[in-house]
Amino acid sequence: MSAEDQVARVVAAIEPVDRVAEGAARHRQDELVKPRGSLGRVEELGIQLAAIAALCPPPVPGRPAVLVAAGDHGVLAQGVSPWPQEITAAMIGGFCAGTAAVNAIANVVGAEVMVLDVGVASDLPPHPRLRVAKVRRGTADLLEGPAMTRAEASAAVMAGVAAANDLIEAGADLLVTGDMGIANTTPAACLIAAFTGLEPGAVTGRGTGIDDATLELKTKVVGTALKAHDLDPADPLGVLAAIGGLEHAALAGMILAGAARRIPVILDGVNAGAAALVATALAPEALGYLVAGHRSVEPGATAALTKLGLDPVIDLGLRLGEGTGGLLAVPVVVAAAAVLANMATFAEAGIG
Amino acid sequence: MSAEDQVARVVAAIEPVDRVAEGAARHRQDELVKPRGSLGRVEELGIQLAAIAALCPPPVPGRPAVLVAAGDHGVLAQGVSPWPQEITAAMIGGFCAGTAAVNAIANVVGAEVMVLDVGVASDLPPHPRLRVAKVRRGTADLLEGPAMTRAEASAAVMAGVAAANDLIEAGADLLVTGDMGIANTTPAACLIAAFTGLEPGAVTGRGTGIDDATLELKTKVVGTALKAHDLDPADPLGVLAAIGGLEHAALAGMILAGAARRIPVILDGVNAGAAALVATALAPEALGYLVAGHRSVEPGATAALTKLGLDPVIDLGLRLGEGTGGLLAVPVVVAAAAVLANMATFAEAGIG
Repeated sequence: MSAEDQVARVVAAIEPVDRVAEGAARHRQDELVKPRGSLGRVEELGIQLAAIAALCPPPVPGRPAVLVAAGDHGVLAQGVSPWPQEITAAMIGGFCAGTAAVNAIANVVGAEVMVLDVGVASDLPPHPRLRVAKVRRGTADLLEGPAMTRAEASAAVMAGVAAANDLIEAGADLLVTGDMGIANTTPAACLIAAFTGLEPGAVTGRGTGIDDATLELKTKVVGTALKAHDLDPADPLGVLAAIGGLEHAALAGMILAGAARRIPVILDGVNAGAAALVATALAPEALGYLVAGHRSVEPGATAALTKLGLDPVIDLGLRLGEGTGGLLAVPVVVAAAAVLANMATFAEAGIG
Repeated sequence: MSAEDQVARVVAAIEPVDRVAEGAARHRQDELVKPRGSLGRVEELGIQLAAIAALCPPPVPGRPAVLVAAGDHGVLAQGVSPWPQEITAAMIGGFCAGTAAVNAIANVVGAEVMVLDVGVASDLPPHPRLRVAKVRRGTADLLEGPAMTRAEASAAVMAGVAAANDLIEAGADLLVTGDMGIANTTPAACLIAAFTGLEPGAVTGRGTGIDDATLELKTKVVGTALKAHDLDPADPLGVLAAIGGLEHAALAGMILAGAARRIPVILDGVNAGAAALVATALAPEALGYLVAGHRSVEPGATAALTKLGLDPVIDLGLRLGEGTGGLLAVPVVVAAAAVLANMATFAEAGIG
């Protein structure tokens, strides 16, 4: 079976979230010993978790995992980032050693960190935290032609599906998207522009913190890319292949796998937003399984969340990536389930 | 020594946060393997924690504790809340049993729950989670006269100091304010109006969810109270005695104790905001030890945070109290310390 057929099979396995459990959870919120609606968005998150699990109260996640999908990007040659490509591999070394921001925050929220090399340009030393499923050594420059072939895009999606499925098999019950790839906010901006119809200037940001001149150049690159390719949002794999990144493809696969297995997926920042637009274009029902972890300062992140209709849990001005913002939302999501699962009702408490 | 003299002694023990450790932490943020400023507010929180501990990197909190200060309110007789006074004691039963929202969320973030009865009207059955330091059985109706005497207000402050000190002695290294007391958002609104100078309509909210008619009545009660008493914000204990609640006094004491022991204190909602205005009026240097846990939907909460110059960590539309919103901020605060303590520098990672 071709990788594209495999993707179609995963998409076909995704069922809508469960409206019966959702209704039961909404009803239960009003029975718990607290004034109606007094836990605000936490109540809504709990209701969503019940809908995802098709169970009320929902299971309380105890084994969160962040999957950091990593790849390199041919478009770096256009000068869209001041960082050299070698930084991708160097940062992955830190993720494996446990000394990066994603590790520090994952430890606090009790999450496992797994790195997926779906397209890093260089070879990486083996490590228990590193899963190698290299589809190619970085994408091609998306201004010179398609970033990858349709078959490669599909294979990268399936690499994300397989990594997520293995995490779930090993017990992960709450997934967080992470990403690493020097220059990856450029293809992310391209994908977000393609799926939202917004202008390049509205979705292109400073990424790691580029200066005004580089931002101007990057915005032009996004605009040129959108014109250079014949993009049809109704063909998400085609768009992904033309202007996306291998890690965006893998994260789209992770989202599809989570949805197919009824596991909630917390989105990190702009790269996750781009991947979620791809995934929900492939499988609209996947949307119900997504939680927007945080609002990145990257403008494309907000553009993607607005298009998806998702409201972020955390808003602290982060723009690091790696999964850091998504991880900070984990305790809120777990708390949302714990409220439904562990609080007494007014009747049980003998009140009211 | 009088209770008021004891309060003065605690105030005198509070030192400013440490600007040397703060500067060192700010410098260290730029050396860690992440783009400068890319962790946004999390970086600022880490810098504040270093300033609080006078140590860079700061200790990573491992033993958070929420102190739920509880009291009853004579002003309930004015009809400001639809809930009967017995609910205060009933809810405390739930906190002790571990079946309330505060327990569900505290479990998720690994926090201990301790209840302080500083002025509940009825007697409560003993429980290991309950500390009884009843100053009086509820306040008097603040429309009929002062809510309590100045000596009682001081004693309630010291009850909060003692409870916080005992938690710290037992190992707590991050404190969260919690509160319980039917009608307590009315004295909270009075305190916030008194210290901010805002109109009653700008600081009075729906509390647990009162209807329009009750909100109108409650706002009038606040306005009448502010005119009925001769309030001098330069005399915080006098203001507290006239229009405050026993749990607001205790939370002010908890804040002073945390500041005196260089332990960060996370504020929950509107009652914590009122207490923080009292505490910082007594001891302006206490402000540096405070973290605004969340933005409650109660308008007085935002008014208090604005006056204090604090920006909340979480903003999820909560209005429950008990400490729930403050607890949700715990993992973010811990992560802020962990980033400074556990990430590698660029030099250590051999990058840049």
